[in-house]
Amino acid sequence: MTINSGTLDGYTTGTPIGMVIQNKDARSGKYEPFVTAPRPSHGDYTYSAKFGTRNWGGGGRSSARETVNWVAAGAVAEQVLEQSEHDVRVKAHVNQLHDVEAPDVTFEEMLEHTEETEVRCADPETAAEMRELLEEFQERGDSVGGSIYFEARGVPRGLGAPRFDSFSARLGQAMFSIPATTAVEFGLGRTAASVPGAERNEDWTFEDGDTRPDTVAEEGDPVPVGNDHGGLQGGITTGEPIYGEATWHAPTSIPKEQRTADWETDEEKDVHVVGRHDPSLPPRAVPVVEAMLYVTVLDFMLLDGRINPDRLDDRPGEYDTDYHPSSPRDE
Amino acid sequence: MTINSGTLDGYTTGTPIGMVIQNKDARSGKYEPFVTAPRPSHGDYTYSAKFGTRNWGGGGRSSARETVNWVAAGAVAEQVLEQSEHDVRVKAHVNQLHDVEAPDVTFEEMLEHTEETEVRCADPETAAEMRELLEEFQERGDSVGGSIYFEARGVPRGLGAPRFDSFSARLGQAMFSIPATTAVEFGLGRTAASVPGAERNEDWTFEDGDTRPDTVAEEGDPVPVGNDHGGLQGGITTGEPIYGEATWHAPTSIPKEQRTADWETDEEKDVHVVGRHDPSLPPRAVPVVEAMLYVTVLDFMLLDGRINPDRLDDRPGEYDTDYHPSSPRDE
Amino acid sequence: MTINSGTLDGYTTGTPIGMVIQNKDARSGKYEPFVTAPRPSHGDYTYSAKFGTRNWGGGGRSSARETVNWVAAGAVAEQVLEQSEHDVRVKAHVNQLHDVEAPDVTFEEMLEHTEETEVRCADPETAAEMRELLEEFQERGDSVGGSIYFEARGVPRGLGAPRFDSFSARLGQAMFSIPATTAVEFGLGRTAASVPGAERNEDWTFEDGDTRPDTVAEEGDPVPVGNDHGGLQGGITTGEPIYGEATWHAPTSIPKEQRTADWETDEEKDVHVVGRHDPSLPPRAVPVVEAMLYVTVLDFMLLDGRINPDRLDDRPGEYDTDYHPSSPRDE
Amino acid sequence: MTINSGTLDGYTTGTPIGMVIQNKDARSGKYEPFVTAPRPSHGDYTYSAKFGTRNWGGGGRSSARETVNWVAAGAVAEQVLEQSEHDVRVKAHVNQLHDVEAPDVTFEEMLEHTEETEVRCADPETAAEMRELLEEFQERGDSVGGSIYFEARGVPRGLGAPRFDSFSARLGQAMFSIPATTAVEFGLGRTAASVPGAERNEDWTFEDGDTRPDTVAEEGDPVPVGNDHGGLQGGITTGEPIYGEATWHAPTSIPKEQRTADWETDEEKDVHVVGRHDPSLPPRAVPVVEAMLYVTVLDFMLLDGRINPDRLDDRPGEYDTDYHPSSPRDE
Repeated sequence: MTINSGTLDGYTTGTPIGMVIQNKDARSGKYEPFVTAPRPSHGDYTYSAKFGTRNWGGGGRSSARETVNWVAAGAVAEQVLEQSEHDVRVKAHVNQLHDVEAPDVTFEEMLEHTEETEVRCADPETAAEMRELLEEFQERGDSVGGSIYFEARGVPRGLGAPRFDSFSARLGQAMFSIPATTAVEFGLGRTAASVPGAERNEDWTFEDGDTRPDTVAEEGDPVPVGNDHGGLQGGITTGEPIYGEATWHAPTSIPKEQRTADWETDEEKDVHVVGRHDPSLPPRAVPVVEAMLYVTVLDFMLLDGRINPDRLDDRPGEYDTDYHPSSPRDE
Repeated sequence: MTINSGTLDGYTTGTPIGMVIQNKDARSGKYEPFVTAPRPSHGDYTYSAKFGTRNWGGGGRSSARETVNWVAAGAVAEQVLEQSEHDVRVKAHVNQLHDVEAPDVTFEEMLEHTEETEVRCADPETAAEMRELLEEFQERGDSVGGSIYFEARGVPRGLGAPRFDSFSARLGQAMFSIPATTAVEFGLGRTAASVPGAERNEDWTFEDGDTRPDTVAEEGDPVPVGNDHGGLQGGITTGEPIYGEATWHAPTSIPKEQRTADWETDEEKDVHVVGRHDPSLPPRAVPVVEAMLYVTVLDFMLLDGRINPDRLDDRPGEYDTDYHPSSPRDE
Repeated sequence: MTINSGTLDGYTTGTPIGMVIQNKDARSGKYEPFVTAPRPSHGDYTYSAKFGTRNWGGGGRSSARETVNWVAAGAVAEQVLEQSEHDVRVKAHVNQLHDVEAPDVTFEEMLEHTEETEVRCADPETAAEMRELLEEFQERGDSVGGSIYFEARGVPRGLGAPRFDSFSARLGQAMFSIPATTAVEFGLGRTAASVPGAERNEDWTFEDGDTRPDTVAEEGDPVPVGNDHGGLQGGITTGEPIYGEATWHAPTSIPKEQRTADWETDEEKDVHVVGRHDPSLPPRAVPVVEAMLYVTVLDFMLLDGRINPDRLDDRPGEYDTDYHPSSPRDE
Repeated sequence: MTINSGTLDGYTTGTPIGMVIQNKDARSGKYEPFVTAPRPSHGDYTYSAKFGTRNWGGGGRSSARETVNWVAAGAVAEQVLEQSEHDVRVKAHVNQLHDVEAPDVTFEEMLEHTEETEVRCADPETAAEMRELLEEFQERGDSVGGSIYFEARGVPRGLGAPRFDSFSARLGQAMFSIPATTAVEFGLGRTAASVPGAERNEDWTFEDGDTRPDTVAEEGDPVPVGNDHGGLQGGITTGEPIYGEATWHAPTSIPKEQRTADWETDEEKDVHVVGRHDPSLPPRAVPVVEAMLYVTVLDFMLLDGRINPDRLDDRPGEYDTDYHPSSPRDE
């Protein structure tokens, strides 16, 4: 990876950051059978239908490789948030692969265990089961779907604007941007359909330093007694943890024999997709989900003037030089 | 409702359409107890937290009344689509309220039955059960959650752009903009987590006029053998029906006794929300969901130049006067 | 004018402000001759060419009446700026009508004299000449062009982002949005073509409280010794007054006999535009130019987090109640 | 230059085109004296004021080097337009440097002569004078301002939307985005201030194949008898040539001795800017102006669905393979 612009001596300059990440292990040849014969349920057909052509040698923009850029952006957002006065923390883990479901885990367990295994499930026992499951499906040339639980803590109250720019709407857009997402849920999600109002509604009380250990509310502030609302009321953040789940369908590139229709030869034919394709997406999508959370939270904080580094008080250069070096000679 | 601009003699002029819809039955007084004491799980707290004040007399922008404008916009979009060469049709119905779930219904059944009852469920028997359910909850001062199934047919292939502007991402944003949405699913949705790739993948074949009665593909076109993909592959439309579900939590305004914290008096107190509040949102949200579908589809068609009325071939005024009257004297 | 949303008891609520201003003196009939026979050099032809039809009874969006909304928006922006910690002040005047040019005036003279006469020229003697000029042209059924000088003081340093969102680019867009604008100039404007770098460049010195009475720089800050740069360097504000000029062509609606081509009858014919049309635009455009300045400055300040009302420190409602009333009972 | 994405085998794929252009001759060292001591009238001060730091080694985003990317984008836009059914052609030339002004030239003369000399003036005699002028100023360590005349022909009628997105507003934004622009004029520009309506207004007649050789109007269409309106009425294109002028101030980087204030040492000091700095901007800005025209015209044509390659009629791949190769094997 190279950073071409927007930084100087290890600091950002405030202008757009340009990065290039080279894929050094691309093998386009293996995609040749699919140029005019789309892989089943893949983006091959729709990209050709939209653009009249497509980058068939690896998928171009339809490839999940694209999301490496988002993870880079998320890493920048994370650092900006870390250096702010706010204590925003984000974590996710794989909570279901096919029929293997993880028990509920705490935020701390996610911080500790998610990155320990390749399947990125924060419950070690379930992680082991998931690994077995993936091996089994991979052996028979098949793939599996799954889901991710995500959580953001320390997000200030009041982020999100009425309606089309609500926090829910923009985070929903971000999550559905990730390739192969089929469902996005906030708070109780799908389950909310069967929970009565009297049960889901959460009384307001005054925070006494003990009510909710994970809130941004301080002593004496109104605080809800629970968090079935998932940190969002009226599409705006309450200061409680924002959490939810997203679901990915099984990867479509599988070695198993399938059939397709070649629009050049007008013939139907067999398809075998070989290569290093992942047997499941959620283990790879965890960092992408976290990046989308960091970026969405930071976007809203910038929109609302919540990230406001001490700017120009007296004259250029006279600020906290840890954050705003006026010159490389300061370092 | 008055239309203030953008139309002339019953035709649109192409410039922004301004409408004003007056709420003639607002009663602000009953909201007075909540000015500094937020209703549980409502947007009262977050709006005050964001803006430092709020329109407490009815909710302002946090109220679902706002969506009447969206339905008006959807009605315009629907008419534009109807007059295009494309045969886009949209319909939705309530497929779950609390523990009452409707069986699968066809698109035609939705067209026929959805608007027959106030609960807007297209299965008459289930509709009756839902009405009973709502009465029961309303009697005990409680409310219920539920979900909507939606479908759009005749949407052309190739709508949606790579990633953050994919059809899924923008439709997801639109759906999560609707007040109280907690989950949005496309195609198999949440279920996709447990369906193997070999099972969900759909072979491509050639449409022989019989393969899929609901496709936009014409004879000899590649067409998928099924539609578990919900009309979207790689975030772009395939020409098959787009379908999915969305979930709403139970309305938070309920007569049952609840508790809240008054930040003016620093005291906790009882809350009773009285008035004409709906005991469930999905029956009211069906037209909103349909509007979001119409608007999203039209937006993408305009972006791609798919709606292209015969413009100025020779000189202004010389077009199909049914569509583009050059003058009111033509009418 | 009615305000339909976004305010409560005389305060804004933070959500969009909806206003409706009715034109109570519209007379559409007199435009009938032009339905398919465009007025010379007016927007009649282009609106019909673009949309295939148009609101011929007064011009619709092509009418400068539209700008009354902008002035309303500018009035809101002005009040927000007034209540901020920044001392942003904006003023403009008509400095040329046809061959009558005003001498240079000070900012204070504009504040004092611009609104004294209908021609809105801040030099009383020139204002009298302009009035005579307008009468003369009006008598012979003709109209005149002219220009406006504008100035914004107290605009903080550092507004404007690299390139397409530079302060110059966005203010240029705003000015060219005003109907009939043909030229926009910042600083030396057109004259800059013939001024050598050594003459136009301005050394930096340290502000000693005396260098530039109109700067935002405080004692000890770097400050340029002059302001030929018009408050903008690299497209970003320097803290010195932002000034420039904009030019409007003569109004096209004139009583004098003209010719046009009727695309319905295929015949050429005479045109006489009668009515209350202004003989010159700049006197009416002064408040519009000021509104564009207020709105542009506020937009950039919001983007940069420079307008940051004391938000939610402890809990909703506990702020300066002059600015953020938590409840109407506080008033 | 490398193209990293968005093309395949010499064709665009429809997805974003990513290019990287390396500056192989950067010499950052010479900028060291200015890190905390801004060059007079340059963007040094404002970038530091905005961001708290800046890329001092060459200017970063404030450098006109940035515009090389715009020229690359313009080249893509030009090719798209060339392959459309529209015959859009764009050309510009330097019509003034300091006190040397070029006589009016025709569009054809610009096409023939602009690129013949480094000063990019389409009048050969004036070009020679300009070269002498530049040498003279360069010798004495000074720089000059100047202006460019630009013209776009074949632009279809009806581009531009009401007001803030009018063609004038967006082209004005584009022109003011170019570094050091101080004035932008369309049609009669500044001169329009002194031209009466009766003189500037242009009657409509019917095009008889002879009226205006440079119009897009076809025989029998309404066409204006002149083009003082510069191809824009009501902010929307008329189909006549769009023309105007833009002005650039003299470059600020000059070898002549100047003074500045160092905010690190609190001392004023001498500045000598040495290096390969251009003595005038317009000769370099001609391709940038042309690029802004191409990009603006194409943007509006895309927005209006005027560029509509034959998309997917029957199935992917079955189009004009010159434009839309379905596969690299077709080439």
